[in-house]
Amino acid sequence: MAEPLKVGVAGLGTVGTAVIHLLEAGREKLASRCGRRIEVVALSARSRGKKRDLDLRKFRWIGDPAALARDPAIDVLVEVIGGAGDPAKRAVETALAAGKPVVTANKALLARHGHKLAMLAERHRVALNFEASVAGGIPIVKTLREGLNGNAFTRIYGILNGTCNYILSRMEQDRLSFAECLRDAQRLGYAEADPTFDVEGHDTAQKLAILASLAFGTKIDPDAIYVEGISSITLADLDAAGELGYRIKLLGVAVKTEAGIEQRVHPTMVRKESAIAQVMGVTNAVTVDADGLAPITLVGPGAGGMATASAVVSDIADIARGVRTPPFGRPAALMTTIRKAPMQRHEGGYYIRLLARDRPGSAATIARRLAQQQISIESIVQRHDARAPSATQSGRSGVPVPVILITYATSEDAVRKALAAVRRDRVISGRPQVIRIEKN
Amino acid sequence: MAEPLKVGVAGLGTVGTAVIHLLEAGREKLASRCGRRIEVVALSARSRGKKRDLDLRKFRWIGDPAALARDPAIDVLVEVIGGAGDPAKRAVETALAAGKPVVTANKALLARHGHKLAMLAERHRVALNFEASVAGGIPIVKTLREGLNGNAFTRIYGILNGTCNYILSRMEQDRLSFAECLRDAQRLGYAEADPTFDVEGHDTAQKLAILASLAFGTKIDPDAIYVEGISSITLADLDAAGELGYRIKLLGVAVKTEAGIEQRVHPTMVRKESAIAQVMGVTNAVTVDADGLAPITLVGPGAGGMATASAVVSDIADIARGVRTPPFGRPAALMTTIRKAPMQRHEGGYYIRLLARDRPGSAATIARRLAQQQISIESIVQRHDARAPSATQSGRSGVPVPVILITYATSEDAVRKALAAVRRDRVISGRPQVIRIEKN
Repeated sequence: MAEPLKVGVAGLGTVGTAVIHLLEAGREKLASRCGRRIEVVALSARSRGKKRDLDLRKFRWIGDPAALARDPAIDVLVEVIGGAGDPAKRAVETALAAGKPVVTANKALLARHGHKLAMLAERHRVALNFEASVAGGIPIVKTLREGLNGNAFTRIYGILNGTCNYILSRMEQDRLSFAECLRDAQRLGYAEADPTFDVEGHDTAQKLAILASLAFGTKIDPDAIYVEGISSITLADLDAAGELGYRIKLLGVAVKTEAGIEQRVHPTMVRKESAIAQVMGVTNAVTVDADGLAPITLVGPGAGGMATASAVVSDIADIARGVRTPPFGRPAALMTTIRKAPMQRHEGGYYIRLLARDRPGSAATIARRLAQQQISIESIVQRHDARAPSATQSGRSGVPVPVILITYATSEDAVRKALAAVRRDRVISGRPQVIRIEKN
Repeated sequence: MAEPLKVGVAGLGTVGTAVIHLLEAGREKLASRCGRRIEVVALSARSRGKKRDLDLRKFRWIGDPAALARDPAIDVLVEVIGGAGDPAKRAVETALAAGKPVVTANKALLARHGHKLAMLAERHRVALNFEASVAGGIPIVKTLREGLNGNAFTRIYGILNGTCNYILSRMEQDRLSFAECLRDAQRLGYAEADPTFDVEGHDTAQKLAILASLAFGTKIDPDAIYVEGISSITLADLDAAGELGYRIKLLGVAVKTEAGIEQRVHPTMVRKESAIAQVMGVTNAVTVDADGLAPITLVGPGAGGMATASAVVSDIADIARGVRTPPFGRPAALMTTIRKAPMQRHEGGYYIRLLARDRPGSAATIARRLAQQQISIESIVQRHDARAPSATQSGRSGVPVPVILITYATSEDAVRKALAAVRRDRVISGRPQVIRIEKN
């Protein structure tokens, strides 16, 4: 058997600790699968004294992650520190520049510096593996990088944030508000004390940036992504979606269009019977559309120490076996700058929920404004809330009336213009809710 | 750029032709992804004169597949002839023995000779790739072979036969009989003129044998599989399943139990809300359970020229890139003989549909026979068919009454014994229908 592969782990949070335990528990199996042992020899983390489920005496301790990265005793660096900047960035760069392969779970680092890091890895002819950075236990990076090689991808979309999917699932199943479900998610450890990064879609956007780059061979660019979160979603939207045969999911979508590549993160109506609509709770899912192929969907655990560690260990195993593919599946030097399709040119169906003022002509005005933008309506539901206390026999109550419109395919630009006009006409109360419909 | 990889294709049916077209269409992309061109240089098939969507003049023609396999002009053999025996077997053996990697879509060959072929491939240090042999476009072989390396698999199950899933889906959605849906499947080209291989579960069993070997590191053994098809499934079963919150799918299941590894193919009740229950039509799906991980499900096209060709091309691309993993993910010499768990010892819940004779004491007798085998009943539904013409006010009609039982977890042995006793008691009419419930 070949020499053992000596691993240095930088970062000892949940994931780092789980990686060490999993390498230990799977030691024999991994050795037989890889033809060599995998041994963790050195560690680095901010605080050595912190209480951890780990016997630190078995490993060398190197305080500075970059020093660990260049230490001659290690063959590969596992970076599970997190964050787009230093010390993670410097540790990864140091390892690659020293000709050492890197395994990382760091989506922020990749979304921001992925292309440069890939260039560096290729220049030094070493692997840069990051299966764990997107959708934890789901092997989507490998699938895009090494599978489906002959086919041209046309679209990739997915549920990439467990926190949001947990909240939307709970809202629908238990008829609770966004705020209540968010509190529960925080209590269960699914959401941070400051949930903005998750619920406003930024976490999904970082992961989408990585997937889009793998799928389309474009240089990663997180700033090319249109991002909208789920905090405005109400039970009324979920109910209306359900009645119309849809479910609402926060999706990251990257799609080739004539205008370029559209990358967007937003609450999305998906057909209830689709594979992705069935994915409830903290589970993640990714669907890949390729030319001439029926869609492929991968469903599984998106986060958690074990799921992420499992992906990290598979990446280490590939290195132990001597497998090295360019980080993004093709030479980084050949990757192109993304031609960003502007969001205004997005085309698709729309769900629009308005509160129409209860006076003559409101409906006619709304209909006229939509028609002016060439928007065709597939269905319209207008109903007085029977529970509204002041409802009178005639139906007139002075209370605004919810109107739900589903449009045929139209453009984002047309919808925005129509709704701006409707607001100027003062026939609606408050902001209209707009949710895009994704064909699937 | 390195020398082109020269490919010989043996077999020019739907898949072989699609592989050649896909390599042609994806030529530039593949070259950039693999760092070298992939060129088909020679072909072999039974009849040269047959009409095909292919300009044969661009390729050398070598009548004998084994001669193609050993031809010095080719670097890799793509075997898409099919069948467990010659000429496919001899061609694959010849290529491996000549030190040439092989890509095959041939499930029958692998299920029967997979272990020996893996030994041969490893002895000659060449790749033997077979992503296309199971679930077409779904990257399940790669996922089991190279992903999830640190985790111990506990169970793998899936919808592996599109014909059966199409038939069961149509029966449920359009309320048609098995025979009617089979005829439609045949008309649409989803089923063969002789459908036995598909509908009786043998196709699923071959694929399951391959997956079990990858998941558990056991020598492939198709004879260790218990096989039951779907031809006995009736609309009454689908309706009852639906009412109880289940759907019926033909699953291949391989699971680690205390008695060994259970491998079985049979109609299965799965919870309606599970990912796998949502898979309708010719689509395939595979779920993997691993220690400490939430399940991972892969859904996608299971067959068809393009899906299969897509998998073949990815396998070729891996070879072009120089990736070589042992065919079953670990050295074949370390793979163990399967310890087969006998089907009698299978444990789980059961759905049992009986036609009880309409006379006093039938129900009591059935209940007693089940109790004698320590079988506990979770639910029981007995109803007189209101549509039966001779139904009287009292409910007695002389017509046998369908009784549907759902048991708590029990053993196959207990169920068989109880039902044999019930039949001896002559309190039921015809054969009882028994469908196993899979926890998922």
